Amino acid sequence: MTLDLVGTFVFALSGAVLGVRKRLDLFGVLVLSFAAATGGGVIRDLLIGAVPPAAIEDWRYAVVSFGAGLFTFYRFPAVTMLRSPVMVFDAAGLALFAVAGSLKALEYDLDPLAAVLLGVLTGIGGGIARDILVARVPSVLQSELYAMAAAIGATVVVIGDGLGLPVSVTAPLGGLSCFFIRLIAIRSGWRLPIATEYRKASPENHPF
Amino acid sequence: MTLDLVGTFVFALSGAVLGVRKRLDLFGVLVLSFAAATGGGVIRDLLIGAVPPAAIEDWRYAVVSFGAGLFTFYRFPAVTMLRSPVMVFDAAGLALFAVAGSLKALEYDLDPLAAVLLGVLTGIGGGIARDILVARVPSVLQSELYAMAAAIGATVVVIGDGLGLPVSVTAPLGGLSCFFIRLIAIRSGWRLPIATEYRKASPENHPF
Amino acid sequence: MTLDLVGTFVFALSGAVLGVRKRLDLFGVLVLSFAAATGGGVIRDLLIGAVPPAAIEDWRYAVVSFGAGLFTFYRFPAVTMLRSPVMVFDAAGLALFAVAGSLKALEYDLDPLAAVLLGVLTGIGGGIARDILVARVPSVLQSELYAMAAAIGATVVVIGDGLGLPVSVTAPLGGLSCFFIRLIAIRSGWRLPIATEYRKASPENHPF
Repeated sequence: MTLDLVGTFVFALSGAVLGVRKRLDLFGVLVLSFAAATGGGVIRDLLIGAVPPAAIEDWRYAVVSFGAGLFTFYRFPAVTMLRSPVMVFDAAGLALFAVAGSLKALEYDLDPLAAVLLGVLTGIGGGIARDILVARVPSVLQSELYAMAAAIGATVVVIGDGLGLPVSVTAPLGGLSCFFIRLIAIRSGWRLPIATEYRKASPENHPF
Repeated sequence: MTLDLVGTFVFALSGAVLGVRKRLDLFGVLVLSFAAATGGGVIRDLLIGAVPPAAIEDWRYAVVSFGAGLFTFYRFPAVTMLRSPVMVFDAAGLALFAVAGSLKALEYDLDPLAAVLLGVLTGIGGGIARDILVARVPSVLQSELYAMAAAIGATVVVIGDGLGLPVSVTAPLGGLSCFFIRLIAIRSGWRLPIATEYRKASPENHPF
Repeated sequence: MTLDLVGTFVFALSGAVLGVRKRLDLFGVLVLSFAAATGGGVIRDLLIGAVPPAAIEDWRYAVVSFGAGLFTFYRFPAVTMLRSPVMVFDAAGLALFAVAGSLKALEYDLDPLAAVLLGVLTGIGGGIARDILVARVPSVLQSELYAMAAAIGATVVVIGDGLGLPVSVTAPLGGLSCFFIRLIAIRSGWRLPIATEYRKASPENHPF
């Protein structure tokens, strides 16, 4: 639970930093903090019917999110100095949320593939909500192995569950897989390929 | 209930005006009207598990939304002449939805902080949905004390409920607080601060 | 059911093509495929309380979506050569989803107008999710009679249901109405009007 709130705090920082850079006012920054920190969990809870979502019902999520937002707003230089530690925390938050999302899906008796999907959505949903709110293409759709790291972490959890391993084994294993893949991707600039032939396509805007 | 439909109508106008300005066709304008008028209530109902949402189930919301959209589409100059009255109605709609959202959350036995959050989401959700649909940063994240007015109105309702006051007292009190704060903010150009130190930050696009 | 998966496949193609054109990496392309193919059904299921949504719970939707995404990613020229057939399949997918959405709403005892609304949302929701994820105004708000075709198809289903006709009659009738209206609109460039007087409006950005 402490770890869960650490993840919430770090994701809230990411929303607040973006909000300050987009020159939102204080309230806008707090909304972005909250959306980034809780978006993934809220989407997951809506999809499995666990309403009201924990992030709405449990006051600690809101307090931690708004605390991170206020801190960023009034101590912006301090937060940006933390860039590298923040990326590490962010990787930890991603790992934690991906694992928690797939575990909750398994609890609700979803299929293995659905549990992986929900793990990924829980991990990346907050970042997507954050970026849509400032009208930009979500960075998780473009970053180095970000969502793929979440998918691998969730897959480890789901396969471990299928093999009958206890959560006390699968959760750390899945979380560490996600965490280290993400860290290595950052360090080495690993990326997934983009389609090499896209240039041959006509440049029109409409998908068809 | 009459007031509720007035709020729906005015929010629908805001969506329709934006749709016409973005040169959407008739159907696009109607979609924006409906999204602006019902988005906040739909999000609230999904989060507390009140499905299908009232705005979908009760035909009057759709009829009022589409009526406002059609009127705006075919009588656009008339609507834009109403600019100042519309802002007053919009403040009234915000007040009403913020109060209605927090009351419904209390009915569903949510915590005080969760009830305030839901009041704010109900008030601002429609405007956010409307703006995301035309790919712009939601104006409520940037406007003069817009969401803050909703938060204060919802807080008055929730505190009054905690003190054991009847809804017949807390609802008007919360609604009027929100309404007048919003009006004064418009008149005087009040804004929340933006972070003064953001300029020192590196200008890169990614939040970290 | 086979038809349903054909619709899923074709909508997934539309998401994948857009993702490749926006230079997303492989994972981003798969996310767009999945969002385009399942967004409408997920929104419908959330609104009527049918959770977890079929598109999450039934692994075939994810497999078909990701299959379409992978195929597009690695065989992009082949997919873009299919432009005209894809538009036909897309019209078929729209017809099918609009009909399926309104039928499911009637099953859940929603009012006729609500059933039409849900049919339209099911038909167009995936395209809206797809376009919001790449920060552009949803093309369904601007295309030739796209959503209107869905509305007509859903209306036929709902009126037929009100007249006591069996689903085996109303579903094909509604689906074919939607399909042919959409095809004719593409062929002839039919569009809904845009408000002719919008130019007289002040050009400011805020809706009021």
